[in-house]
Amino acid sequence: MKIVGLITEYNPFHNGHQYHIQKSLEVTGADAAIVVMSGDYVQRGTPAIMPKHLRAEMALKCGACAVFELPVCYATATAELFALGAVSFLDQLGVVDYLCFGSECNDLDGLTKIADILCDEPDEYTKFLKENLRAGMSFPTARQDALSSYMGISDCSFLLSDPNNILGIEYLKALRRVKSRIQPFTIKRMESDYHDQTLRSTYSSASAIRSLLAYSSSVLQTQQVTGETFENTPFSSILNELEDQVPKSCLALLKDYHKVLYPVYQNDFSLLMKYKLLNKTPQSFIRYMDVSETLANRIQNNLNDFFNYKQFCELLKTRELTQTRINRALLHIMLGLKKNNVREYMENGGHFYAKLLGFRKDRQDLLSVIAKKSALPLLTRLSDTDSISEIGQKMLRHDILASNLYQSVITDKYKTAFRNEYKQPMLKI
Amino acid sequence: MKIVGLITEYNPFHNGHQYHIQKSLEVTGADAAIVVMSGDYVQRGTPAIMPKHLRAEMALKCGACAVFELPVCYATATAELFALGAVSFLDQLGVVDYLCFGSECNDLDGLTKIADILCDEPDEYTKFLKENLRAGMSFPTARQDALSSYMGISDCSFLLSDPNNILGIEYLKALRRVKSRIQPFTIKRMESDYHDQTLRSTYSSASAIRSLLAYSSSVLQTQQVTGETFENTPFSSILNELEDQVPKSCLALLKDYHKVLYPVYQNDFSLLMKYKLLNKTPQSFIRYMDVSETLANRIQNNLNDFFNYKQFCELLKTRELTQTRINRALLHIMLGLKKNNVREYMENGGHFYAKLLGFRKDRQDLLSVIAKKSALPLLTRLSDTDSISEIGQKMLRHDILASNLYQSVITDKYKTAFRNEYKQPMLKI
Repeated sequence: MKIVGLITEYNPFHNGHQYHIQKSLEVTGADAAIVVMSGDYVQRGTPAIMPKHLRAEMALKCGACAVFELPVCYATATAELFALGAVSFLDQLGVVDYLCFGSECNDLDGLTKIADILCDEPDEYTKFLKENLRAGMSFPTARQDALSSYMGISDCSFLLSDPNNILGIEYLKALRRVKSRIQPFTIKRMESDYHDQTLRSTYSSASAIRSLLAYSSSVLQTQQVTGETFENTPFSSILNELEDQVPKSCLALLKDYHKVLYPVYQNDFSLLMKYKLLNKTPQSFIRYMDVSETLANRIQNNLNDFFNYKQFCELLKTRELTQTRINRALLHIMLGLKKNNVREYMENGGHFYAKLLGFRKDRQDLLSVIAKKSALPLLTRLSDTDSISEIGQKMLRHDILASNLYQSVITDKYKTAFRNEYKQPMLKI
Repeated sequence: MKIVGLITEYNPFHNGHQYHIQKSLEVTGADAAIVVMSGDYVQRGTPAIMPKHLRAEMALKCGACAVFELPVCYATATAELFALGAVSFLDQLGVVDYLCFGSECNDLDGLTKIADILCDEPDEYTKFLKENLRAGMSFPTARQDALSSYMGISDCSFLLSDPNNILGIEYLKALRRVKSRIQPFTIKRMESDYHDQTLRSTYSSASAIRSLLAYSSSVLQTQQVTGETFENTPFSSILNELEDQVPKSCLALLKDYHKVLYPVYQNDFSLLMKYKLLNKTPQSFIRYMDVSETLANRIQNNLNDFFNYKQFCELLKTRELTQTRINRALLHIMLGLKKNNVREYMENGGHFYAKLLGFRKDRQDLLSVIAKKSALPLLTRLSDTDSISEIGQKMLRHDILASNLYQSVITDKYKTAFRNEYKQPMLKI
């Protein structure tokens, strides 16, 4: 039995994701697709629009055989650490033969060459890079230019400017770094640009779909969403629009859980964020992942102008500090994720358990294989964590806190019953 | 110049409070009334319905010459500690000659006798008390019965059952304890029963007025308020009702700041409370003021049934744990007020600054007298705290955090600009 691993966010799940699953099975010839997915928070440093169990259910209904949760410290990290966390997870799972990722370029050789250079850092490349930096270029520009010079291509910006190419390079770097036996594949993304806000006929971006869902609940939310205006559109019309964008089996879930479990926004955490920031000093901010001294001081100096979470993140932005970096930094402060936590995890192998969100009953055989081959304890119930090391317990507590917080926000927003992470049943589809 | 000190909450200010100020000046013959008032949180363990600056402004407009803020650790404490904190503050202010408090009984001699017995704990009284406790009586009943037996009155329950009598006894105990030269007076309360929820012709309880204000904004709040229903009453009608209940000079403020600065409820802090509880262990709960081991365990065991702040407090109630006690305990967890904080403060004199919320410009002379005679540094600007001891700085940080939190909730609820406690101007009326 051959297995392909997929690294995903599904925020939310749409046609492009279903295509990714199917095409991955096709190009690799694998018998099953196993997914490692972000939990309730995603890589751009924000809460996911809907909870992980709902997103996992959609994936299972659309072809994934099992969905595992990526620990929150990796799910919300920089592209490099996100990729390393996800790839090393699939590697340690012990059963994954292939990794298949979507990219804009669909050029595995090109991406691999770049990944190798970035790993090996040959002298000539390093020389170009240093010269460029000395000439005052920003790091991304300097790196891109140094790569072009070294590889002899007049301009490799087409490979380094698209977000999924960049992520692909990081996956390839990570595979090398952990000396994985997993074989990489790439397919061309069928969805539109990552940042594209408008709906396409069948393959829109997750971002465009989030905008659509956001407008369907504009009464509830205070944040502005750029893109087309659906302000006065009733949810039934939104569902009609979504029919072309998400698999049929997901539509019922989107309908049933609208304003029950989702949408969830950054600004739903405004007061929590503010509370946490008021309770801390700049010195203590620096202990959290992605918080530099400059950012810590900016947070402190601008705290009086905190109006809501999103607005505050935008307020902190500078030429040097990107929006995503700031989102991540603040999220890490709120979730209590410290630099030395991640350092400790990485020094001890990076993973300590494989938390299963759900699986397909008709592929239960996979679980037996994983339980036998995996280097990680298979975690199906949070009440049963005896096999997890002490450091793993610490990592797990962070995951649980993050999810309980997310659930609390849902409870508060939609006046629904709170479901503690300990009580969340594993999905069996 | 003779000065009378008043201990207040003004939650919110009403005719009964104005009467209290006027009558206090009259019965004591004092030239000025100085007020020490709770900040943004009150003694029953909840946030005040409106911020302290607004409540202080009303008091200044209605006869108070200066309003000082009672530190939050005393403002939200048990009756005994609340009284000790407030009385010792007035004492250390160095200029207060009289303390005048409202009581249901208007019997200073009767209250003083009881206070003396409770302070001296004569053997015979202690014997009665122990017997009663051994017989299985609850502490309040046992104490009441022991006092009756000792004093030879068939039943002194009329003195010990009314909340303002009880508070009066605590003031008298505190005056003895700090060996104060302040002379106590009492006047009969003109307002209706503390717990009375219905409006009276002119002197309603603060509780009834809070209910009225709550219903005027029932769309915004999720908590239930018992009492008459004003659900569909527009705010203009509510204001008409209030005309008979609050001084004219307060009406404009109530009108201007409705849904701008108030009303604020316990449930506006639901998510913050939940966040704090999720982040802690039962062992750490016990460190906070008013949290017993039993309560800490109840909190932990019921956390999954946290729906909102008020509902959770009600859920935790038992025969032994009163609602107010639970309110206070949870508030102290949220505000980070620990048992050893208060112990340290008490061991060092209890007060380290006199924080002035506002004063009447025509009585500026008072401030000079206070600045000269007071044992406490007069704090008029938070940027100017050099004269405050290190332990005082710690106490002040708790006060500031509590107020910034309250302001953040207002900002979040009414989408108004945040005003950091450091930027709050002192009132000059």
